[in-house]
Amino acid sequence: MTKVAILGATGYTALELIKLLLRHPGVEITALISREETAPVDRVHPSLSGRLSLPLENISVKEVAERAECVFSCLPHAASAMAIPEILASGAKVVDFSADYRLDSPEMFKKWYEIDHPDATRLGKVPYGMPELFREQIIPAHLVANPGCYPTTAILPITPLLRAQWIEPNDIILDAKSGISGAGRKPKLNTHYPECNESIAAYGVGKHRHMPEINQYLSQAASLPVEVIFTPHLVPMDRGILTVAYAKPTRSVSQSELLDVLRNFYQNEPFVQIVEHLPATKDVAFTNNCHITARVVGQRVMTIAVIDNLVKGASGSAVQNFNLMFGYDETLALL
Amino acid sequence: MTKVAILGATGYTALELIKLLLRHPGVEITALISREETAPVDRVHPSLSGRLSLPLENISVKEVAERAECVFSCLPHAASAMAIPEILASGAKVVDFSADYRLDSPEMFKKWYEIDHPDATRLGKVPYGMPELFREQIIPAHLVANPGCYPTTAILPITPLLRAQWIEPNDIILDAKSGISGAGRKPKLNTHYPECNESIAAYGVGKHRHMPEINQYLSQAASLPVEVIFTPHLVPMDRGILTVAYAKPTRSVSQSELLDVLRNFYQNEPFVQIVEHLPATKDVAFTNNCHITARVVGQRVMTIAVIDNLVKGASGSAVQNFNLMFGYDETLALL
Amino acid sequence: MTKVAILGATGYTALELIKLLLRHPGVEITALISREETAPVDRVHPSLSGRLSLPLENISVKEVAERAECVFSCLPHAASAMAIPEILASGAKVVDFSADYRLDSPEMFKKWYEIDHPDATRLGKVPYGMPELFREQIIPAHLVANPGCYPTTAILPITPLLRAQWIEPNDIILDAKSGISGAGRKPKLNTHYPECNESIAAYGVGKHRHMPEINQYLSQAASLPVEVIFTPHLVPMDRGILTVAYAKPTRSVSQSELLDVLRNFYQNEPFVQIVEHLPATKDVAFTNNCHITARVVGQRVMTIAVIDNLVKGASGSAVQNFNLMFGYDETLALL
Amino acid sequence: MTKVAILGATGYTALELIKLLLRHPGVEITALISREETAPVDRVHPSLSGRLSLPLENISVKEVAERAECVFSCLPHAASAMAIPEILASGAKVVDFSADYRLDSPEMFKKWYEIDHPDATRLGKVPYGMPELFREQIIPAHLVANPGCYPTTAILPITPLLRAQWIEPNDIILDAKSGISGAGRKPKLNTHYPECNESIAAYGVGKHRHMPEINQYLSQAASLPVEVIFTPHLVPMDRGILTVAYAKPTRSVSQSELLDVLRNFYQNEPFVQIVEHLPATKDVAFTNNCHITARVVGQRVMTIAVIDNLVKGASGSAVQNFNLMFGYDETLALL
Repeated sequence: MTKVAILGATGYTALELIKLLLRHPGVEITALISREETAPVDRVHPSLSGRLSLPLENISVKEVAERAECVFSCLPHAASAMAIPEILASGAKVVDFSADYRLDSPEMFKKWYEIDHPDATRLGKVPYGMPELFREQIIPAHLVANPGCYPTTAILPITPLLRAQWIEPNDIILDAKSGISGAGRKPKLNTHYPECNESIAAYGVGKHRHMPEINQYLSQAASLPVEVIFTPHLVPMDRGILTVAYAKPTRSVSQSELLDVLRNFYQNEPFVQIVEHLPATKDVAFTNNCHITARVVGQRVMTIAVIDNLVKGASGSAVQNFNLMFGYDETLALL
Repeated sequence: MTKVAILGATGYTALELIKLLLRHPGVEITALISREETAPVDRVHPSLSGRLSLPLENISVKEVAERAECVFSCLPHAASAMAIPEILASGAKVVDFSADYRLDSPEMFKKWYEIDHPDATRLGKVPYGMPELFREQIIPAHLVANPGCYPTTAILPITPLLRAQWIEPNDIILDAKSGISGAGRKPKLNTHYPECNESIAAYGVGKHRHMPEINQYLSQAASLPVEVIFTPHLVPMDRGILTVAYAKPTRSVSQSELLDVLRNFYQNEPFVQIVEHLPATKDVAFTNNCHITARVVGQRVMTIAVIDNLVKGASGSAVQNFNLMFGYDETLALL
Repeated sequence: MTKVAILGATGYTALELIKLLLRHPGVEITALISREETAPVDRVHPSLSGRLSLPLENISVKEVAERAECVFSCLPHAASAMAIPEILASGAKVVDFSADYRLDSPEMFKKWYEIDHPDATRLGKVPYGMPELFREQIIPAHLVANPGCYPTTAILPITPLLRAQWIEPNDIILDAKSGISGAGRKPKLNTHYPECNESIAAYGVGKHRHMPEINQYLSQAASLPVEVIFTPHLVPMDRGILTVAYAKPTRSVSQSELLDVLRNFYQNEPFVQIVEHLPATKDVAFTNNCHITARVVGQRVMTIAVIDNLVKGASGSAVQNFNLMFGYDETLALL
Repeated sequence: MTKVAILGATGYTALELIKLLLRHPGVEITALISREETAPVDRVHPSLSGRLSLPLENISVKEVAERAECVFSCLPHAASAMAIPEILASGAKVVDFSADYRLDSPEMFKKWYEIDHPDATRLGKVPYGMPELFREQIIPAHLVANPGCYPTTAILPITPLLRAQWIEPNDIILDAKSGISGAGRKPKLNTHYPECNESIAAYGVGKHRHMPEINQYLSQAASLPVEVIFTPHLVPMDRGILTVAYAKPTRSVSQSELLDVLRNFYQNEPFVQIVEHLPATKDVAFTNNCHITARVVGQRVMTIAVIDNLVKGASGSAVQNFNLMFGYDETLALL
């Protein structure tokens, strides 16, 4: 049994993580840390009634590290990178849900997060927790940077096409749509039910913090600098992200060629399915799957990818990374 | 043109009121008062873009009264009764959305609202703004207590049956379901989209502040003390209330007799429709209508009533009362 | 490995069943039967892409029985009872989702389903698949009648109170609210998105086919004839049922006494949780749990129960029954 | 009073039209025609209870023309163009909701609608019912082709930029999102509540019939052939369309320049508002307004436009056209 702890255990990704871990035969949850709440966790998350009633605890990072072999950090950015060095020093491994270790450069981090990085020397050495692309680096890692939800729907479909040099790296448009749970558990006006229900709107146009993360990993795939145009929207549903990518082909391609490239690339991946039909977010809701299709329209290549933002876009990927880091079957608790 | 002002102009009932008043040929909106915001109103409510851009103002009650012949108070309880006496003293009339003048007794008010009433001597003299039952008192009034949203769906269907002495006054159960806008515009966890979407739950069981209001007016109708059992629920939709009432008949009655009593009672009412089918809240959404039907099941009589909580349950009724108080056609701006 | 087949594999309960069975380590799905479709099942249910692509087959009942040790019948009423005798004769066991074997009397079946029962002699001998009440009969059974979704939320909370003789059996009102998936996968006007979204309505008032089923099992619990008043509603959400029961206490009881009776009754049950708070359907969504609370309001006792209609209200219960019938841990695939 | 009739009166656009016309002081509805239903219209649309109970009638086109000065045709494509010539011959005017008279060329019509046009000689002579662009042609017209819902959100924001030659005509991508009512009132699997709720999906990628209509009017604006890439999505909400357009600027432009061009172009238009913020579909729900904003992101110009698909995208525009054709104030019944 691997002992695990969760930092920042009151949010939605933490709740989803707990539910997945309760199904994991190799895991014992030993500590749930919150700076704000001290109730049993099933008081804060009534869906855990009868399933888990560990107390939320406000304990030191040191004590967390003593109780757990793996710590999942669901803390906000910066807060996460302030806690993680001490955990790693104690010998525990970490899966970090925050953006803190996703970007390679402290300058980029500062530009987008408007704060000096608390643990800058580690940047560039932490594998990005997308097993489909970085499995070999994840397996031996002590710290993994779990990907953002939107980037998963951009990087998975586009990377094979960039690597194959079938699309231009400098003209990629991403039009993304997300359910509201992606905005977190803290009530705000724009996620207040009567505001966002029965409505769709774009937000953060040209300014969303997932852009640099997408650019960094697509640039790696292209071996050239990529700067996408990224438009996220809030859609009135709990979960799900659908991202349409519009790219310019470098040569004449057909839909079946595109699907074949994607199928070959992901043929052994348990959680990526290349489909012929136009996928809906509902098809992958409450699963760790990513469904991807491709189309050719006019002078453009399109990819459409869907995930559950709380599972493949967060906690499911985290468990997948955990499984790799601790030698479990990669799909454990995820099928 | 009647000059009107709105106190507490940032909430949902105020917004709905503004939209209705913009259609009213006899109304000029002269002041929108907020203690928190000073932006143009269409900044706070972008749905007013291009329709109204008056500034929200933090002006004194005295100044409000100087600018308006009618003041709609959308303030919270107690705050409303603190402002209203001065407005009335200045000669302006008031339609009060709060609960402050709905209950006849200061003791009852204190019991349910846990505060001494700021204007207790007026209690019992203010007509309840339900024109179908109290039109004659509303017409000459200077202050009208606009009904709560839930009470409208209880008092309208049950009053005719109590007056006809067809149901027992001491055994009435009300199972009510409301859209989320009824909870107001202030973000809270229980109205945070990912919490209340895709979910239904009861709340305030046996403790909801609309209970004493319902009891008071049903007691009047019965000429006997009535204490209902009232269970409100939050339903994942923006607007609408559906209330099922279960009552004991005093004698054998048929469905068609029940419908006839209701039809006769409301035959001249423009906003109450007695229907044969089972009504849905959608049938009355964005209208000032109340659809009511009745059934006999086993040993019980049932009524089912639906309204739009923001229109007939709040701002539509307010405009209806305004029309009566100022001599306009009762249906103006409401069809 | 137990070989299982599903009759009527295109509906929502079949889909939910397939997803649960894919997590069951002791199950191999060997046949999916449909009279209408012959595509691979993941074409009809794209959420199965990459998880199961067995073909839907139109094979004879005899052939089904040859391929499976357990057959789950998701056929409509009457059709189910026409197929089941032959399956049982072949030696396979059956969990029946239809209403065919829930009622004890052929007359009652005919009254409510308006057709002669195709297998009347078996009525009254088939255990009702509610393990919390009938576990001992289910374990050795070859055929189990899986409960209806609404009855689960009525029978579980009320049975302990009737058995304790704390409530009057002859005055029970059930006000129930269900998500739309309960209406099945066949498109109809009342479940067309723009009709039922943003709306709540009662339906089948006094006529719903789950009434006789509820009455039968509550009568057993009371050892007296029970006839409930039952009002179902359609709520704009995919899944979930919340049922409020209003009953008359036979003596003065407190909320804590009620909760204690319920807690004692269900203390060893893995899927029934007695909670202090007011439960929401979201708390049990996508789980096999039933959360129940109780209240005393005025002269009435209330219980509130929530389930996921597709899991505890259908396919989860079916797997629970399957586990009991085949000697697996009762909670396998359900936690 | 202008006498009007509606052909195809059971669908959602007809219902919305009826509600608008009931507010129009110059209109008398004299006939509601359906080939399928003969009930009073408030039976089919219970939201009309107490507001309109004209019977649905299956009368000849000739009889319709005798009863009305204006006929709104909500018939499907082809059926509409089969009825309209006779109506026009009788002297009545027509606002056509179908696509039949939107395209200039019979070949284009046949390519996209796969049928020979029933009234081909009229093509190219019927004004497109977008008053902001074609008011002068609409005023004297006897037949107007009411625009499709998606095209309104594409043509209004892009036309000023094309006319100003600020964007390249040959590289325009439209990513559009629509509420479900746009799919009509006939129940189908993809609009069945449990299928489309809590889900977003693209559909008709590269094949949607609104594409040629968009291309035709943008080509006019550019005086060059335009072929857009158009991706529609179904969003889980009743109403609303949000369309993001991505275009290539011909020269360096700023956001404020873009907004100024749009503001100047639409400065006298009552129903087009150029806004600074990112608009939500909710801002224009149940109104005839179109809110538009613009952004510059990377090497692209973006416009974002929102409308209510049933109002500005259908019935509201139809009333606006009617007002122009019959000499009423253009905004009558629409504010």
